[in-house]
Amino acid sequence: MAFEIDLNSDLGEGFGAWPMGDDEAMLGIVTSANIACGAHAGDAGIMRRRCESAVERGVRIGAHVGYRDLHGFGRRHLAMDARAVEDETLHQLGALGAAATAAGGRVRYVKPHGALYHDASDDPGLAAAIAGAMAMIDRGLALLGPADTELERAAAAHGLAFVAEGFADRRYRDDGRLVDRREPDAMLDGDDALAQALRLARGESAAPRVGSICVHGDTPGAVAMARRIRERLTGDGITLRAFA
Amino acid sequence: MAFEIDLNSDLGEGFGAWPMGDDEAMLGIVTSANIACGAHAGDAGIMRRRCESAVERGVRIGAHVGYRDLHGFGRRHLAMDARAVEDETLHQLGALGAAATAAGGRVRYVKPHGALYHDASDDPGLAAAIAGAMAMIDRGLALLGPADTELERAAAAHGLAFVAEGFADRRYRDDGRLVDRREPDAMLDGDDALAQALRLARGESAAPRVGSICVHGDTPGAVAMARRIRERLTGDGITLRAFA
Amino acid sequence: MAFEIDLNSDLGEGFGAWPMGDDEAMLGIVTSANIACGAHAGDAGIMRRRCESAVERGVRIGAHVGYRDLHGFGRRHLAMDARAVEDETLHQLGALGAAATAAGGRVRYVKPHGALYHDASDDPGLAAAIAGAMAMIDRGLALLGPADTELERAAAAHGLAFVAEGFADRRYRDDGRLVDRREPDAMLDGDDALAQALRLARGESAAPRVGSICVHGDTPGAVAMARRIRERLTGDGITLRAFA
Amino acid sequence: MAFEIDLNSDLGEGFGAWPMGDDEAMLGIVTSANIACGAHAGDAGIMRRRCESAVERGVRIGAHVGYRDLHGFGRRHLAMDARAVEDETLHQLGALGAAATAAGGRVRYVKPHGALYHDASDDPGLAAAIAGAMAMIDRGLALLGPADTELERAAAAHGLAFVAEGFADRRYRDDGRLVDRREPDAMLDGDDALAQALRLARGESAAPRVGSICVHGDTPGAVAMARRIRERLTGDGITLRAFA
Repeated sequence: MAFEIDLNSDLGEGFGAWPMGDDEAMLGIVTSANIACGAHAGDAGIMRRRCESAVERGVRIGAHVGYRDLHGFGRRHLAMDARAVEDETLHQLGALGAAATAAGGRVRYVKPHGALYHDASDDPGLAAAIAGAMAMIDRGLALLGPADTELERAAAAHGLAFVAEGFADRRYRDDGRLVDRREPDAMLDGDDALAQALRLARGESAAPRVGSICVHGDTPGAVAMARRIRERLTGDGITLRAFA
Repeated sequence: MAFEIDLNSDLGEGFGAWPMGDDEAMLGIVTSANIACGAHAGDAGIMRRRCESAVERGVRIGAHVGYRDLHGFGRRHLAMDARAVEDETLHQLGALGAAATAAGGRVRYVKPHGALYHDASDDPGLAAAIAGAMAMIDRGLALLGPADTELERAAAAHGLAFVAEGFADRRYRDDGRLVDRREPDAMLDGDDALAQALRLARGESAAPRVGSICVHGDTPGAVAMARRIRERLTGDGITLRAFA
Repeated sequence: MAFEIDLNSDLGEGFGAWPMGDDEAMLGIVTSANIACGAHAGDAGIMRRRCESAVERGVRIGAHVGYRDLHGFGRRHLAMDARAVEDETLHQLGALGAAATAAGGRVRYVKPHGALYHDASDDPGLAAAIAGAMAMIDRGLALLGPADTELERAAAAHGLAFVAEGFADRRYRDDGRLVDRREPDAMLDGDDALAQALRLARGESAAPRVGSICVHGDTPGAVAMARRIRERLTGDGITLRAFA
Repeated sequence: MAFEIDLNSDLGEGFGAWPMGDDEAMLGIVTSANIACGAHAGDAGIMRRRCESAVERGVRIGAHVGYRDLHGFGRRHLAMDARAVEDETLHQLGALGAAATAAGGRVRYVKPHGALYHDASDDPGLAAAIAGAMAMIDRGLALLGPADTELERAAAAHGLAFVAEGFADRRYRDDGRLVDRREPDAMLDGDDALAQALRLARGESAAPRVGSICVHGDTPGAVAMARRIRERLTGDGITLRAFA
């Protein structure tokens, strides 16, 4: 039986003089690039350069939409109401869309970032704000996020494709939920992460069936691990391809 | 002989809790709205609300692109190179484009703001950056700005329509240039400004032939004056219509 | 029996080109000025100008410390941990201190702003962060805030004076708590607010004994009301004086 | 004959999630730390942590004052007038002062950063703004900058000590000026930079007599070079000590 899976990573998370991770290396590994849109990270120049590289390498472009909180990198909860999140999603999606267009590409999906990823997974209002903004711009956009959440429900309600993502470096409970990060055995590394990636790609994990595996690139070690995951998957005959 | 002219004004220049001017009043007066794009002023919410009002009232939407300098309101020269200005123009145009789309409208033109308006009028590299970014997004966009400048030349070079704007409240020299603001008789008000608006609309001014007159709305007095200009022009049989 | 009370107001809440309220009028009314410190509002220039005016008029200078969230005006909850709030309090207090020193004055108290006011009233960690930062800079600083809260307790724990404030325009319950804003009769205006101000100053209110009354100046109506409160209090023989 | 010299470096130039350079390594090398103040780089947390480390290691604390332009890292000219630069200098000096006080230390000098360093070297108004702000806060502050510039003259006019700095990695012309960076032989590295550092410390360079040598720490290579300079100077019997 032939399996295929998408690999996604957060890219374009520098700002001005500050780089973050090795984006060019990661663009040689992943099939989908979650590009920051200038709110939690990224700026007009970085967004455009990443879109150009992604188009050149045939990597799919996604909008990594987050709270407008540069100082907190979008990782802090910010009490924005649903309407403001809808406005922000439009803004960030439009700005990245122009960068993608200029690069000869196109934004194909949205993935919420950081605190917004978590908040919108649980809050139907925020999830509907994100999905609603997407539907206003392009009904062909997919929403990438955690399975069985308000995000998945909001995508369905707005007629958008939803793609669930899994994590190679996080342990899942038998019920398919992630083990809480604060628990001692929450994280997986080395061969355990490779094995997990394989299980996710083959649908053998306790996690819900995922269409994409999220890999990290913010440290040299993370890039190396992402490369090993790619090699392990392809070595096992799994096709890496951006989700349809 | 029947004349027609466009009236444009800078709108959406609040930020967060801070309003600026009476945008709703001005949207009842002008035919084109230069909407700030979140760099020198404006935010995702304000941009969207102004697009909604503009669509409702049939006012044309333009992107008022400026230096990303909220504190200086885009009025201070900032040493951005041409590539950075091109990136910023794409970013701002894309973000406003999404707000316009969500409102059922579309961005139809670009007008540079403040220090960028002046810098790009004189600097061929900056002018080409703005026009180049526009052409990458939509060749149907017009560039609104001062006649006989690098902006006009860059629009032509990129195959974009250029619309010259004139000022009812500024005196022109016999050679068609504006009298320097620092000179004592540079500004026109009351009946003088009304007469000037009429001359501009009829092509009888020393100024180059303009397709649009810029009116201000940042004070109650400015809104009242804008309304008088509108009434004087229509009272004289001049049709107010967004430039083609 | 002779009563005296302080009147405080939030000032310096403009930013760059955007004004907020009529600060000069309010400086003629209040005895204590809560000056924004550049995080939720205010900038280096506005902070200094307000300090200069306050010194000129003998109005006491306080640091109005808030979340660093210009777009949300510090009114949105932002998940900052206690250490970050301590750092921010130091930063804002230091920046305003320099403006006050340059104006020939000195910062005498701190009042948290907006969402931080509410969050730190309930959260002992945040309250301790604010009081701790104050104690590191100047043990003579007072903390101005709502009575019987974590802020009051943190001030005591750090050996700082605490001054409770009351609101002329808010109704109090019999237990001394504010009626929730969402209830229909929560707000007081006109003669009711004047009467409330008088009761607060005389210690006859259901509210806890307060050392200061907070008045608003963000609209022309608010300034007029603040002036009426001042006149009513002084007309009744109450001395208006900054808290000791 | 015994020589002594100061080594200074730009530190605290991260922002939020973005680090910059290896500050802890550099604090083991230099005798003076130019700490960014939150305008071109740095934030309340980073400022405080760097002050703590500097105090612990006996490194002198200086305020690295720059244009408020995070995106451009303070390297782009921004048309601020002298009054605004004075306000900003006060603000940044006050904010760092509070961080230093909390760490048990004190700000002892100011060094302008990036575009402001260059602009204020040439513009007497900007130089006077910086020196004037310093004098309002603490007449014991020294101004660190390039010799024989408006900065040196402004320090003298305001009764402030001035300390000239030199660069180990830049070539000087016979008249003591730096060779323009755009010239092919402008930069020195390896043994040439070590030799230059020695000449600067001994007063044998064509450069004006300097009290401090600026070393860089923004790359691993730069840190290694800074360490070699330190070792070469101390190996030659030169005492490294913060300027008086």
